[in-house]
Amino acid sequence: MTNALQPGATIGILGGGQLGRMLSMAAARLGLKTHIFEPAANPPAGDVAHRVTTAGYDDIDALKAFANSVDIITYEFENIPTEALDVIESVRPIHPTRNALAVSQDRITEKAFLTDLGITVAPYAQIDSLSDLTAALETIGTPAILKTRRFGYDGKGQARITDFTQAEDAFDALKGAPAVLEGFVNFTREVSVIAARGIDGAVVCYDPGENVHKDGILDTTTVPAALAAGQHMDAILLAGKILNALDYVGVMGVELFVTDTGLIVNEIAPRVHNSGHWTQNACVIDQFEQHIRAVAGWQLGDGQRHSNAVMTNLIGDDVLDYANLEGALHLYGKADVKIGRKMGHINRISPKE
Amino acid sequence: MTNALQPGATIGILGGGQLGRMLSMAAARLGLKTHIFEPAANPPAGDVAHRVTTAGYDDIDALKAFANSVDIITYEFENIPTEALDVIESVRPIHPTRNALAVSQDRITEKAFLTDLGITVAPYAQIDSLSDLTAALETIGTPAILKTRRFGYDGKGQARITDFTQAEDAFDALKGAPAVLEGFVNFTREVSVIAARGIDGAVVCYDPGENVHKDGILDTTTVPAALAAGQHMDAILLAGKILNALDYVGVMGVELFVTDTGLIVNEIAPRVHNSGHWTQNACVIDQFEQHIRAVAGWQLGDGQRHSNAVMTNLIGDDVLDYANLEGALHLYGKADVKIGRKMGHINRISPKE
Repeated sequence: MTNALQPGATIGILGGGQLGRMLSMAAARLGLKTHIFEPAANPPAGDVAHRVTTAGYDDIDALKAFANSVDIITYEFENIPTEALDVIESVRPIHPTRNALAVSQDRITEKAFLTDLGITVAPYAQIDSLSDLTAALETIGTPAILKTRRFGYDGKGQARITDFTQAEDAFDALKGAPAVLEGFVNFTREVSVIAARGIDGAVVCYDPGENVHKDGILDTTTVPAALAAGQHMDAILLAGKILNALDYVGVMGVELFVTDTGLIVNEIAPRVHNSGHWTQNACVIDQFEQHIRAVAGWQLGDGQRHSNAVMTNLIGDDVLDYANLEGALHLYGKADVKIGRKMGHINRISPKE
Repeated sequence: MTNALQPGATIGILGGGQLGRMLSMAAARLGLKTHIFEPAANPPAGDVAHRVTTAGYDDIDALKAFANSVDIITYEFENIPTEALDVIESVRPIHPTRNALAVSQDRITEKAFLTDLGITVAPYAQIDSLSDLTAALETIGTPAILKTRRFGYDGKGQARITDFTQAEDAFDALKGAPAVLEGFVNFTREVSVIAARGIDGAVVCYDPGENVHKDGILDTTTVPAALAAGQHMDAILLAGKILNALDYVGVMGVELFVTDTGLIVNEIAPRVHNSGHWTQNACVIDQFEQHIRAVAGWQLGDGQRHSNAVMTNLIGDDVLDYANLEGALHLYGKADVKIGRKMGHINRISPKE
């Protein structure tokens, strides 16, 4: 394929957490090297990367040197400062591209983009003032969730409003951050589709997995999700529509609510996704390799599922029991166990029928 | 488990080739670090290891520093010089242990060990002189294979003797190296069993795979091997017997000939084995993780096969076609393509029934 990276080439990865670590291992399987850029010392990805740069996203010289040392750049998280992207993009291509980042970095932009595609999202309103919020609560009703437009993850930067009297406290807690009010969606289950799109426009979707959260953090993903055949197909088509609209290259996680009236997109993440970790042990080619194949300009691999799977996150102290867990264990090499910290996960597979 | 390594501990690996590379990735999955000791610069394992020491096996200081920097030591090849083992073993434990290495480093010792266990091997004779060889040819007959006792791999250091007149040339080609003459075995197929034994004595055997060689180098391994139920069980029991007799800790490759009169052991390798690469994509826990689990003192994992598999080695120029190959690709990150060099492999799986 034209412009495809050759084995021995180097992929730069912004972010050295567990996603960068698993991307690095997938790249190594394909004979590709990785160079991790990460502000924090001793990142989990460092142990399996060819090279690590420890520097901040405001270090222009480090960003330039990093970009010059690699053949292409990708990332493990979407909240990369725009200024840093400007610097590195002037040196090497970034995949997925800036428009995918722009759409997913801001909840309002994301919802507007999805709505334009004819995809249903939860009722929402832009909140820049307390009067915006009280007006939006009149329209959307309660319960509703007030979220910062940017930089939210694992339930951080969110407040649930069940009563109008909570509006002022919730607004004050934002400390002036631009926000969005989302109406509560009465869903029967939450599923996600991990979808990949190659540089040639080919799309491969993994079977939808069903997610259960605990304390705002993903707890388990079960595959297959209990979906009617029509919903299964809707979920896949919807994911493909999003990737095509963005002329996307790489893996994307699409989180969906299943409701009595159809599927609602909760959010999209322009990267490999926690709810796709099950693919490591239940598919021929997992989400990490699929992402590397896409950004390297290779043909996508076979994403078929050979087994059913349950992925369970190991959060905080969960990991201390690692020696007694049956299944395929994946630990992230993080030195300190902290409450709410993702320390690893375990994939348990069973025959498909 | 007592003395089991904790996540974050470091495993030293002697040898930085593709086996060391895949062992390093398996260790990383379990949150363990690796330190590679390898004489050659830029070893394939280096890209995915926490640390690399580039030094010769005669560099006592480097060996000591290496051993002191790790918690336990294992290896990817059996021909480690005895003097180097003496140095590092005085600092840290080595698994599999010295007796497994001693047995497998020398073809005569290996055959004597197996014979003592009641296991059938090919007829053989120790060859230290031309008269030994002519006498042995009288007893064993032709065709027969003259092999160096030590340091042979991938058909190197071997000569086939089909006629008595070839004896002198074959002997001269040894250049004085101690040798063994092996009688030709009329086998219907060659299979191998990849077996693991934990520090607690538990044994896990993978299903036997059937091997086909090309030009003396493994070409494909197909699983399951076409074995009668009785032969399947014989193969597994025989492997278990060998591991138990050595009080073995780690993964071993046991190569077997299937004949009309039963199974004959061709050779054993005290390490992960090329004919076990299929486990990466057809088992919950592959041979690399199983080896790391064993030497780290962890419980062995689930070695069950969820799919059928065909592993195909990519030798020399085979690798140039990597972009067009379907299946799970594994490239070793070797810079130079050479004739006969193992550059990667590809695993293709299919449903079990």
